[in-house]
Amino acid sequence: MQNIQSHHEAFLKHLDTFTKPKEPSTLYDPINYIIQLGGKRLRPILTLMTAEIFGSHYTKALNAALSVEVFHNFSLVHDDIMDDAPLRRGKETVHEKWDINTGILSGDAMLIMAYQLFENYDPNTFQNLAKLFSKTALEVCEGQQYDVDFETRDDVTISEYLKMIEYKTAVLVGAAMKMGAIVANASEDCQNSIYDFGKNLGIAFQLQDDYLDAFGNPETFGKQVGGDIIENKKTYLYLKCLAFSSQNDRKQLEHLYSVNPSDPSEKIETVKQFFIASGSAEATKKEIENYTKKAFSVLESIKISEDNKNALIAFGNDLMTRNV
Amino acid sequence: MQNIQSHHEAFLKHLDTFTKPKEPSTLYDPINYIIQLGGKRLRPILTLMTAEIFGSHYTKALNAALSVEVFHNFSLVHDDIMDDAPLRRGKETVHEKWDINTGILSGDAMLIMAYQLFENYDPNTFQNLAKLFSKTALEVCEGQQYDVDFETRDDVTISEYLKMIEYKTAVLVGAAMKMGAIVANASEDCQNSIYDFGKNLGIAFQLQDDYLDAFGNPETFGKQVGGDIIENKKTYLYLKCLAFSSQNDRKQLEHLYSVNPSDPSEKIETVKQFFIASGSAEATKKEIENYTKKAFSVLESIKISEDNKNALIAFGNDLMTRNV
Repeated sequence: MQNIQSHHEAFLKHLDTFTKPKEPSTLYDPINYIIQLGGKRLRPILTLMTAEIFGSHYTKALNAALSVEVFHNFSLVHDDIMDDAPLRRGKETVHEKWDINTGILSGDAMLIMAYQLFENYDPNTFQNLAKLFSKTALEVCEGQQYDVDFETRDDVTISEYLKMIEYKTAVLVGAAMKMGAIVANASEDCQNSIYDFGKNLGIAFQLQDDYLDAFGNPETFGKQVGGDIIENKKTYLYLKCLAFSSQNDRKQLEHLYSVNPSDPSEKIETVKQFFIASGSAEATKKEIENYTKKAFSVLESIKISEDNKNALIAFGNDLMTRNV
Repeated sequence: MQNIQSHHEAFLKHLDTFTKPKEPSTLYDPINYIIQLGGKRLRPILTLMTAEIFGSHYTKALNAALSVEVFHNFSLVHDDIMDDAPLRRGKETVHEKWDINTGILSGDAMLIMAYQLFENYDPNTFQNLAKLFSKTALEVCEGQQYDVDFETRDDVTISEYLKMIEYKTAVLVGAAMKMGAIVANASEDCQNSIYDFGKNLGIAFQLQDDYLDAFGNPETFGKQVGGDIIENKKTYLYLKCLAFSSQNDRKQLEHLYSVNPSDPSEKIETVKQFFIASGSAEATKKEIENYTKKAFSVLESIKISEDNKNALIAFGNDLMTRNV
């Protein structure tokens, strides 16, 4: 198998063919801007890797990989409007650099263009890709809606939270890999297994994101450590902490999550102590491990070479130690 | 052929199966709200009619027809946000009844659901429908973008304006009909001809909308007569008037289109006089006639029965006298 670096380079080259200037530039310039803003390109690389693992040349999967990346960026553009986020990857968000209307319309066009990228595949493959894409895209919308709804609810359960991150984040990782399998004409069993691998890894990845947001190394995390705590975001750490705490501690934590101090450093430290003392931090680490193991155990049932299994496990481990 | 009334009823019955309550209700309730808000359902009826004209039972085209209607409503939800419109069909718009974020996300979900409605067709039909849909949807986005861009430009040409309404409005009428032809397995020639019929009729329809906005009967027009003039909208009437006017008149008209009087009745009357005196009103009527004739002349080349041709001509004429 090609190494990840060469998949990455091939993908970026393919991306260049997509981001040619087009008219009306007021519609397409913002699209090219967000697409070229960078990012780790994890999802499209997974599509290319998976196609290769199931015996196809990765070049056959480039358009499917690009579709996943275009969709991912579409969701970022619309989510950033909804979250009123000024920055994305350290640069201005689309609605900030242009305006909200531009963000809405350019996002819409990206969603349509993501479908168009399947058009070069034969009708059967096209239909399989587009069906998976639609199902996944709708789940991503539902996940985003649950995330919005949770902001104003104080009775969110752990299982509701897990469903939310599964829909908002993990299904797209699963779908990215399944698309590679579809392009490579893998059996349905293989397609479903690799989807489950990606989905479980995606859940582990998001839980780890929750964990690192509180306990990550500020030097390497890439985002502001404590950001979720500042925003009173009900993450896994928070919900688990509530579940594990005495009534008194619960009240204190809920109070901390109702205030927005101008200097949040003390709040962050106190909340982190709650997370640790309650056992929530440990439980979160355990849950990350569970989902990672669950992902790896799915691999046992897939008929691919040991080398390929090891490549996927290495990728998973790299992802979980954030080296990719 | 079934009459339009029975197509309409069959379509509404099919629509009921689509608008069942779904979770999260915060995502799907707004979708069901806008879909059930009514409207003439012209586009889906055209899909059903066309399928029948090319020898299929209209029921086969119900999902394609519904897809067109769901897409149309998606575009209304997002356009209403961009236009800051409080009302749609006399009722609150989605972003007004809920909020902008709901409008964005529910709209996104509708766009995806429109694609899903093609999933019941066989892979070849699916691909043909989805390709046409994507091409059309992207043109609608481009048309909307041109419309936005024109607001701040004072050098819009007639041909740019015609391209804008073609993209924003007319291609979806053409596509609605072509989808009926695709479902009915009509030849490519027939598919393209019926598309051209729909597209030209769509341009005529939009030009007539421009005309009636100034000169329509307030009793029957359904919108506020003079609305475009109040909003200083550069319609065909306005652009043609500029082109036909002396420099002095042009300056006066441009001045009128730079003010927003609290009582607009005098402005409306003066502008209408300009439209008439310059010959623009007459030229617009002529252009509507040209596009209608162009649509009808396309029918001559299609191999369908005289009865069916007459049904399409009757529909076109009804549309142009706004009886449907």
